[in-house]
Amino acid sequence: MKMIPVTVSSIALDANTKSPVVVLSPEGQDKVLPIWIGHSEAWVIAMELSKLNASRPMTHDLLKTALETLETVVTRVDITDLRDQTFYATLTLSHDSNYFQIDARPSDSIAMALKFKAPIYVAEELFHLAEGELRSQAEKMNLTNDPESLAERLKKINPEDFGKYTL
Amino acid sequence: MKMIPVTVSSIALDANTKSPVVVLSPEGQDKVLPIWIGHSEAWVIAMELSKLNASRPMTHDLLKTALETLETVVTRVDITDLRDQTFYATLTLSHDSNYFQIDARPSDSIAMALKFKAPIYVAEELFHLAEGELRSQAEKMNLTNDPESLAERLKKINPEDFGKYTL
Repeated sequence: MKMIPVTVSSIALDANTKSPVVVLSPEGQDKVLPIWIGHSEAWVIAMELSKLNASRPMTHDLLKTALETLETVVTRVDITDLRDQTFYATLTLSHDSNYFQIDARPSDSIAMALKFKAPIYVAEELFHLAEGELRSQAEKMNLTNDPESLAERLKKINPEDFGKYTL
Repeated sequence: MKMIPVTVSSIALDANTKSPVVVLSPEGQDKVLPIWIGHSEAWVIAMELSKLNASRPMTHDLLKTALETLETVVTRVDITDLRDQTFYATLTLSHDSNYFQIDARPSDSIAMALKFKAPIYVAEELFHLAEGELRSQAEKMNLTNDPESLAERLKKINPEDFGKYTL
């Protein structure tokens, strides 16, 4: 499985579904991978991108502190799979010359990658799979009354298409 | 500082402020300590109390898995302080015969205590302080148009006074 390094190109609110979306893209390429995530996770990622800190430690801050206390770092994050309209990720921890991979949601993984300045990789096939899966998701869930399908919208996605997440 | 062992007596939605509240109380005593928390943290605690699992690991599940992977457990949680209307807590981790205390919000701490079946302690003075602080908070924030003050409501708090958090 070829893993492509990506960066978070934006975190935004999908104007049609009102759901937050984190958009990943490979550097210097036109492709994007949009991942719909929860509001609280979007908030954490948006704060991290804006270099803002909450006055009290949020859950991801607690996770970071716990790992640091245990002399452990997040070394990389991999978005590996898409099954039943759900993206899967792994968080790689390094402790005492050992590496551990942990199953995680993409939203938590991306938040932790940003906190530890760790690289994010996406399995190349996901860029192709995502469009088909999201189209079937839109049909199955009858998500919108909008005549434009999710897949159609997906084709046009770029950060400017979303209302920016404002803090 | 005398620490009193408590249990989570309920997690509920304050009908007046629409904010979730986790109510702690010492076993066999009439006292209660209500702590207003965020919606997503309330959801996690409510799921934990109901023994429900999300299909994918939530952030607190990820924290638990990371700790377990590092052969670390949460041994206790202490709600230690109340300053500027904010409760402070510490999470105690045990790893390889060492103990580490980490600063955390009560909501995260309580969620982790429930996940690790670790005891929760509250500094005794907080039961007295909470009422005064919450009264001043209600006045300062002009939280409600309700003629009944937050402190008055606090006196009457018991799990039946709240709409139960439904999952």
